[in-house]
Amino acid sequence: MSAKKMVYFFGGKVAEGDRSMRNLLGGKGANLAEMVNLGIPVPAGFTITTEVCIDYYKNNRQWPEGLEEQIRENMAKVEEVMGGKFGSTEDPLLLSVRSGARVSMPGMMDTILNLGLNDAAVEGLIKKSNNARFAYDSYRRFIQMYSDVVLGVDNSKFERLIDELKEEKGVQLDTELDADDLKLLVERFKALVKEEVGGFPEDPWEQLRGAINAVFDSWNNPRAIRYRKIHDIPHDWGTAVNVQSMVFGNLGETSGTGVAFTRDPATGEKVYYGEYLINAQGEDVVAGIRTPEPLSTLEQKMPEVYKELTGLFDLLEKHYRDMQDVEFTIQEGKLYMLQTRSGKRTAQAAVRIAVEMVREGLIDEKDALKQVNPEQLDQLLHPTISAKARANAQPVTVGIAASPGAAVGRVVFHASDAEAWAARGEDVILVRLETSPEDIGGMDAAKGILTARGGKTSHAAVVARGMGKCCVAGAGAIKIDDEARQFTVGEHVVKEGDWITLDGGTGEVFLGKLELETPEVSGDFAVLMEWADKYRALKVRTNADTPHDAQVARQFGAEGIGLCRTEHMFFGEGRIAPVREMILAKDTESRKRALAKLLPMQRDDFYQIFKVMEGYPVTIRLLDPPLHEFLPKEAEAIEQAAADLGVTVDELKRRITELQEFNPMLGHRGVRVGITYPEIYEMQVQAIFEAATQLAKEGVKVIPEVMIPLIGTVRELEEIKASLVEVAERVMQQAGVRVEYQFGTMIEVPRACLVADKIATEAEFFSFGTNDLTQLTFGYSRDDAGTFLEVYMDKGILEKDPFQSLDQEGVGELVEIGVTRGRKARPNLKVGICGEHGGDPASVKFCHRVGMDYVSCSPFRVPIARLAAAQANIESPREA
Amino acid sequence: MSAKKMVYFFGGKVAEGDRSMRNLLGGKGANLAEMVNLGIPVPAGFTITTEVCIDYYKNNRQWPEGLEEQIRENMAKVEEVMGGKFGSTEDPLLLSVRSGARVSMPGMMDTILNLGLNDAAVEGLIKKSNNARFAYDSYRRFIQMYSDVVLGVDNSKFERLIDELKEEKGVQLDTELDADDLKLLVERFKALVKEEVGGFPEDPWEQLRGAINAVFDSWNNPRAIRYRKIHDIPHDWGTAVNVQSMVFGNLGETSGTGVAFTRDPATGEKVYYGEYLINAQGEDVVAGIRTPEPLSTLEQKMPEVYKELTGLFDLLEKHYRDMQDVEFTIQEGKLYMLQTRSGKRTAQAAVRIAVEMVREGLIDEKDALKQVNPEQLDQLLHPTISAKARANAQPVTVGIAASPGAAVGRVVFHASDAEAWAARGEDVILVRLETSPEDIGGMDAAKGILTARGGKTSHAAVVARGMGKCCVAGAGAIKIDDEARQFTVGEHVVKEGDWITLDGGTGEVFLGKLELETPEVSGDFAVLMEWADKYRALKVRTNADTPHDAQVARQFGAEGIGLCRTEHMFFGEGRIAPVREMILAKDTESRKRALAKLLPMQRDDFYQIFKVMEGYPVTIRLLDPPLHEFLPKEAEAIEQAAADLGVTVDELKRRITELQEFNPMLGHRGVRVGITYPEIYEMQVQAIFEAATQLAKEGVKVIPEVMIPLIGTVRELEEIKASLVEVAERVMQQAGVRVEYQFGTMIEVPRACLVADKIATEAEFFSFGTNDLTQLTFGYSRDDAGTFLEVYMDKGILEKDPFQSLDQEGVGELVEIGVTRGRKARPNLKVGICGEHGGDPASVKFCHRVGMDYVSCSPFRVPIARLAAAQANIESPREA
Repeated sequence: MSAKKMVYFFGGKVAEGDRSMRNLLGGKGANLAEMVNLGIPVPAGFTITTEVCIDYYKNNRQWPEGLEEQIRENMAKVEEVMGGKFGSTEDPLLLSVRSGARVSMPGMMDTILNLGLNDAAVEGLIKKSNNARFAYDSYRRFIQMYSDVVLGVDNSKFERLIDELKEEKGVQLDTELDADDLKLLVERFKALVKEEVGGFPEDPWEQLRGAINAVFDSWNNPRAIRYRKIHDIPHDWGTAVNVQSMVFGNLGETSGTGVAFTRDPATGEKVYYGEYLINAQGEDVVAGIRTPEPLSTLEQKMPEVYKELTGLFDLLEKHYRDMQDVEFTIQEGKLYMLQTRSGKRTAQAAVRIAVEMVREGLIDEKDALKQVNPEQLDQLLHPTISAKARANAQPVTVGIAASPGAAVGRVVFHASDAEAWAARGEDVILVRLETSPEDIGGMDAAKGILTARGGKTSHAAVVARGMGKCCVAGAGAIKIDDEARQFTVGEHVVKEGDWITLDGGTGEVFLGKLELETPEVSGDFAVLMEWADKYRALKVRTNADTPHDAQVARQFGAEGIGLCRTEHMFFGEGRIAPVREMILAKDTESRKRALAKLLPMQRDDFYQIFKVMEGYPVTIRLLDPPLHEFLPKEAEAIEQAAADLGVTVDELKRRITELQEFNPMLGHRGVRVGITYPEIYEMQVQAIFEAATQLAKEGVKVIPEVMIPLIGTVRELEEIKASLVEVAERVMQQAGVRVEYQFGTMIEVPRACLVADKIATEAEFFSFGTNDLTQLTFGYSRDDAGTFLEVYMDKGILEKDPFQSLDQEGVGELVEIGVTRGRKARPNLKVGICGEHGGDPASVKFCHRVGMDYVSCSPFRVPIARLAAAQANIESPREA
Repeated sequence: MSAKKMVYFFGGKVAEGDRSMRNLLGGKGANLAEMVNLGIPVPAGFTITTEVCIDYYKNNRQWPEGLEEQIRENMAKVEEVMGGKFGSTEDPLLLSVRSGARVSMPGMMDTILNLGLNDAAVEGLIKKSNNARFAYDSYRRFIQMYSDVVLGVDNSKFERLIDELKEEKGVQLDTELDADDLKLLVERFKALVKEEVGGFPEDPWEQLRGAINAVFDSWNNPRAIRYRKIHDIPHDWGTAVNVQSMVFGNLGETSGTGVAFTRDPATGEKVYYGEYLINAQGEDVVAGIRTPEPLSTLEQKMPEVYKELTGLFDLLEKHYRDMQDVEFTIQEGKLYMLQTRSGKRTAQAAVRIAVEMVREGLIDEKDALKQVNPEQLDQLLHPTISAKARANAQPVTVGIAASPGAAVGRVVFHASDAEAWAARGEDVILVRLETSPEDIGGMDAAKGILTARGGKTSHAAVVARGMGKCCVAGAGAIKIDDEARQFTVGEHVVKEGDWITLDGGTGEVFLGKLELETPEVSGDFAVLMEWADKYRALKVRTNADTPHDAQVARQFGAEGIGLCRTEHMFFGEGRIAPVREMILAKDTESRKRALAKLLPMQRDDFYQIFKVMEGYPVTIRLLDPPLHEFLPKEAEAIEQAAADLGVTVDELKRRITELQEFNPMLGHRGVRVGITYPEIYEMQVQAIFEAATQLAKEGVKVIPEVMIPLIGTVRELEEIKASLVEVAERVMQQAGVRVEYQFGTMIEVPRACLVADKIATEAEFFSFGTNDLTQLTFGYSRDDAGTFLEVYMDKGILEKDPFQSLDQEGVGELVEIGVTRGRKARPNLKVGICGEHGGDPASVKFCHRVGMDYVSCSPFRVPIARLAAAQANIESPREA
C-alpha cells in the first residue's frame, strides 16, 4: 500500500525537506535538511513528521500503518551514507533521537543519545574508537538516559549506583572511573533496570521504537503543556522526531570538535572566531577540563578541514545572511556540521556586522535593521565598568538592575547633601531607603542612585531611567542608618563620603572606585539610525521635564516631547514654599496669590524647554500627583516647613492628615485636582502660553500641546477645557501673536478607553499613559507589586513584567479599543503613548500595529524606539 | 396651500392628539390631549409640534410657512370653547405658553403666564374678576416674566423697582401692595422696558409670537444643552409649545383651586385625599398664607363639583391604572383639571395600592410589580424615628446617610467598649473617626455607627449596610477626643455614656433618645414579594458572613449566599492571635502550625452558615485583604500584640513596616496572597469541606462554591486551583461522603473581563465584584473619592455615585464583555454579581439584561432585588 509520506530523509547531498517545511518537519528537522541541501556535510538521518505525532495521539498512541516500513527504508539510506549499520556488532551505527516542534521549546521535551548500543555493539564501538572507556561511558549514559526517559526508572537510582561505585573505588570524580569501572557500572545499571521494569531492551529496533514513542509522549508532559500555555502554542501542533546518526570527535588525533562564529561576536570584526579540541567530544569543550585552542591554529593542523570549514562559514553567512554560530565535529578527518544558528553578539558587534554586511552587499538596509536587537542598543548608550576592573572586583551585594549604566561616587544619604556635595564638584551616589519626589534635586545631582527598597518601577527606578542615570534599587541587603550616616552590608560598614561603584545594568554594588569606560558610539551606529529613520512610520518623542533632558533627547533623535511632567518643577529651588502655601490656602484668593508666585518660574521652565525643542511639539501634562505629595513627611521637615510658611506645626499637621489617602494612586489627583482647584491649571496654562508667545515673538517656532491627565469621562474635559482655552486665547490676544496648539488628554484609566469616542469629541490628541493603565487594568500598584510580581514571573504566571513590556492581551486590548473608538469620533485624532513602554521594543511594535502616530520614551531609549519602530514598519508596513 | 399639520387642538370634548403622540406633541401636550379625549374638562388650547421646532432651527429661526395661519385657526377654536377673546379688551382670553419635550426636562426651559394682557385688556380682566388688585398683579407679573424671558431684560431690575416701591410705601411684603400700588408698578415696569429695549409689546399677537419663539429658543439654552448631555437626550428632538387658556380660581365664592390624590398617599387607603381653597389661585395653596380645607368639605360646599371631581378621580385611576395626583381649578362654578400625574406615595402606600388594585381588578400582578419603586421598599425594612419625635427634634449635625434605619444608644468610642457594654445589656452607638476591620465586633454589638470621616462606601458604611445596621458616616462637624472619651459638635460636648439618636436614612444626628417605630410590614408586602418571585428570572442571593446575617437574609427570601467573606472571621474572638502568629511566621512550617489553630474555628464558621443555608449554594470567598490589615496600628495595640505573640515590639514593628503598602487596594492581596502562601487557602478549603462533609453526614444538603478573589490571568487560577481541588477531594474521601461543589472566581479587575474566555476554562462560575471593578475602571479609591466625588456629582460630571449604581457605560461594558466571553468558552458558566450594586434596582436590571444567573446583596436589600429582578423580567422577558 502507498501510505502517505511520513518520514523525510536528510544526508549525503540530498534532503527531502528544506527550511520552508518547518510546520511538517519542525524547526530542527527543517534546518538540518536545509544544511544538507546547501551541500554541507551533516550526519545523515531522517525526520518523522509532526503529522505522525498528531496521528499517534488520535490513534490511541499507536503508530500509523506503514510508519515502521518507511523508517526502515530511511535507515537503510542513513547506513548507506554513513557507512555503519544500525544494530551491527562490528560497525554499529549509533543514533540520536530528538524532538523538534514548529517553534523551539527549549528543554521541554526529551532527547536520547547513543541509541543502538547493546552488549554486542559496545564491542564494535570499542574496536572502531579504539577507546574502551569512551565506549562503556557512552553505553552507561545511554542506559541511564533511556531508562529514565523511556522506561520511567528514577534517574536518582542510577546516580546512587555511580556514587556507590566511586566510594568503593575511593575516587571523587566520574572522570576518575576507568573502562573496567564503567563496564561494571553498565552491569549494575542493567541489573537495576531488570529489577525495576523487567529488563533493558537489547534489540536496537525495540530501543528505537521506545525512543520515538517517548518523544511523542513528551509533547504532552506537564512541563511542555505548561510551556505551550504560557507561550500560546496550540496543543495540536505535535512534534516531529529527528533520528540522526551520531558522529564522534574523540576517535583519535584526526578527530576533533569545536564551536565557532563567522565573525567576532564581541567587536563585529569580519574574522573567523572560535575554538576547538583535538580528540574530544562537544561536552569536553564546554566542561573546560582541557583548554581549547583558537580556531586559527586549525589551519596548520588540518589545512584541508580548515579550508572546508571556513568555506562553509562563508556559505552559511551568505545563505542565512547573518553571522552564524556553528558546532562542528571532525570524525577521523571528515568534517560534519552539527548545527548552525544566528550568533549572539554584543551590541557593538551587532551594529558593526549589520552595517558592514550592507556594505558587502550581503544584505540590504532593511535586513540590517532587522538584525539588530533594539533592546541591546542600551549597552551602547551608558558608561560601563571596564572589563579589567570587573575581572578583579567582587560585588558586596546585588540589587535590582533598575536603570542601566555604571557610576562611581561618594556615598551621601540625603538629597540635600547630594546637591551640596555635587555643587562643590564631588561625584556622589545617593543612597536612600527609597526615594520620593522630594529627592528629585538630589537625584539629579548624583551620579547614581542606590535604594534598599523598591523594584524596577519604583520611584527611584522610573526617575533614574528618565534621567538616563544609573540606579540599583531594592538592594535589601544594605541596612541604612540615616542618623549615623552609614550603611552596613554583610560585614562591611560604608560611611558617608566612602567611594562605591554601581552597575545599574546588573544591579551590582562594589566598594571603592572601579574604572569606567564609555563605549564608543561608532559611526556605524549613526548610519544604522539614519536607516531606521528612513523606514519607520512612528514618530519618536521623548519624556523630558528639563531643558537638559530635552537636549539629550534631541541629540538621540527625539522629534518632540511626548510627556513633560510639570510636578517635578514644583520641587525646584524656591518653589516648594509657594507650592505649600498654595496647598495650605484657605480660600481661592489666597490660593491664587500663591500660584501667582509660581507663575514666573513655570513660565521660565516652559520657555527653556520650548526653546530646546524648537519646531517640535511639546506635550505638557498639567499637574498630576495628589497635593499631599508636596507636603513634608518627617517630623523635622514638618517643623522646618511650618516655620518657613509661618503656620503652626499643628496647623500643617492637620492639613497633612486631611490630605492623607488610603490609596493615593486612586485618589484626589490629576484632573480631579484641576476640577476642584481650577486656578492651578489656569496658572499652568497661562505660563505655557506666556512662554510660547514670548518665543514666537523671538521667532522661535513653538507647538504646545496641553495634556489633561486622568480623564475618565468626557464631562471632566468639558468642565475644565473651556476655561483653559479661554486662558490660552487671552494670553495670545494680549501678546498679539498666535501659536499653533492643541488640547488633549492622557488615556490612563480603563474607562477612558471604553468611552474614548466621547472623550475624542473634546480631545484633539490622546496620549496613552500605559503605566497607570497597567496598574488599573491588572489592579497592581507598581510601588507594591514587588512582593508578588517576582513570584509571578518565577512561576510563569506572567511572562514579562507588565510594567516593562506592555501586556498586549489585556492592557493592549484596552489601548486598541481606545484608539479605534477615539479615531471613529475624530478621524484625525493624534495618538501616542507616553508610559515607560514607549521605549520597549515589543511595545513599540504594538503601538505601530494599532496605528499610533508616535511613541514617547526616556531620552536614553530614543534610539531603541527608533530602531524598533523601523523594524515594526518593515515587518508590517503602514500605508502612507 | 395645504401646509402640513403643525398645530393640534385640545379642549371641549375634542383633542386632535392623544398620549401616544408624545414624540410629536411632547409629554405635556400629549397628556392634555388625552385628558380631553377622556371627556375631562381641561382649559382649551393647542400644541405646536416638535417638528415645527426642528424646522424653526433648520430655517434660521423663522416660522415655517402656514404656521401663523394654523395658530389663528386654533385660537378661534379655543375662543369658541372658552368663551373669551384673545386680545379683547372686554373679555380677554389669557394664555399660558409652555415648553413640552418628549421627556420631561424640569425647569430647563421657559414658561410664560397671563399672556394677552395689555393696558386695555387689564381693564377687561378687572371687570371680569371684579378684582383690580388681582388684575394688576397678573399684569405686572406678565410684564416681568415676558420681559425677562422674551426681551432679555434682567429680572433683578424689576425686583429693584418692587423693593423701591415697598420702601416708598413703608411696607415689607409684596402682598401689602394694593391695586393702585401695582398699577403704579406696571407703569414703572413699562418705563424700564422702554428704556432697556424700546418698549413692551401691547399687541397680544406680537406677545404670542415672541413667547413661542422664546420657548423654541430655550431648547438650546446652555442649561438645557447641558441637561441633555448628562441625560443622553438627543439635541435634535426639539420641544413642542403648548398654548393654553388660563383659568382663575380667584373670581369669587364660586371659584376655587385645589390639589388631590385619588388614594391616601401616606397609607395607601382607598379614600379621596386632598385640600382646596375657595376664591384662590394655585399658588395660594402652595404659599400657605391661608389654611386650605380638607377635600371632604367640598361635598357640602359645592356638591355638584365634588361629584364631578371624584367621578374624574375614578375615571383617571381607571384610565391610567395608577393612583393620581391632580390639580384642579373651579372658575365660577366650572371645574377644570389642570394636571394629572402618577401620585408620589410612601413605600407602605405603594405596596398597599398595588396589591389592592390587583384585587379590584384594576391592574394585573405585573402592573402591580411595575408600580412599586424597589428602592422605596428600604423604608419598610428598618426602624425609623417616629413622626412625633422628629417634629420636636433638631439634629445637631447632618452627616452622610450611609446605612438606613434609625438607632438610639449610649455613646462609646472603642469597639471593645461597644462589645462590653452590649454584653451587659446596654444599647450603644459606636462613634469612631473611621472604622477598620478590627472594629467588626464592636460594630456588630452596637445599635448604630457614627463616624467623622468617610462616605457612603467607607468601611463603616459598607459593613453597616451588610449588617442592616444604621450608620451615619463622614459627620465632619463632630470632633472626637478619644482620650477624653468625648466628642464635641458645635457648642455641645457629648461624653461616653450620653444618649444619642441617629437617622441613617437622612444622616441626621440628634442628642438624647428619640422614639423609634418599626413600620409594619403588612401582609400586602408578602403578597407582592410572592408575585415578584413568580415573574423574575434572576435568582437573588445575599452577602453574609455570619449565621445571623444568613438567617435574616433567608427570612427576606435569599436563595443562597453570593458572597461570604472569610476575613471578618479572622477578627473573631480568639482568632486574631493565631492570625497574627501566621503572619509573623518565618517559614512555611510555622505558618502551617498557626493555621492549624485557625482550622477548627473556620470549620465551625462554615458549619453554622451552611446549616442556615441548607439546600442553597454558599459562595465562600477565600481570604482577600492584604495581611497588614490584621496587624495592629497604634503603639499601645502593638505593644499588647507583641506581648500576646511573644515577640519583641521591634520585631512586630519590622514586620508591620515590611508589609506596609502605598496602595493596599492594588497590593499584595487576594489570590496574590494565595499564591505566595498557598497554605492559607489550603486551610480554608479544608475547613470548608470538613464542615460540608460533616453536614452531609447529618443529612443536611450543602452546596459550597469556592471563590478565588482578584484573578487577572488564567494562570493564577491554574496555579492555585489544582492543589485546592486536591484538598477538597482528599477531605471528602477521608469523610467517605461527597458533596456537590464548584470552584470559581471573582471578576473584579478590568483585565479579568477582557480575558474572561481564558479564565472560564478553569472557573466554573464568575461573580462580578463590581466594587473593586468600579474602583479600577474609574481609578477611584472608594475610601478616598469622597474628596472629589461630591463635587463631581454637584457639577453633573457624574450623574450617580458609581459605587451605588453601576456605571453601565464604562464598568457595565466590561461586565458585559466578561459575561459574553466567559460564556463563549463555557456555555453553562454560572454568573452573578456580589458588589454593593447587587441591591441597586437599576444595577439589578442591568444584570438581568446581560444575562446573569443571580445577584447577591446585603440581607436587607434582598426584597428590593427581588422586586427589581421581577420588573426587569417583565420589561424584557428572558427566554426560559
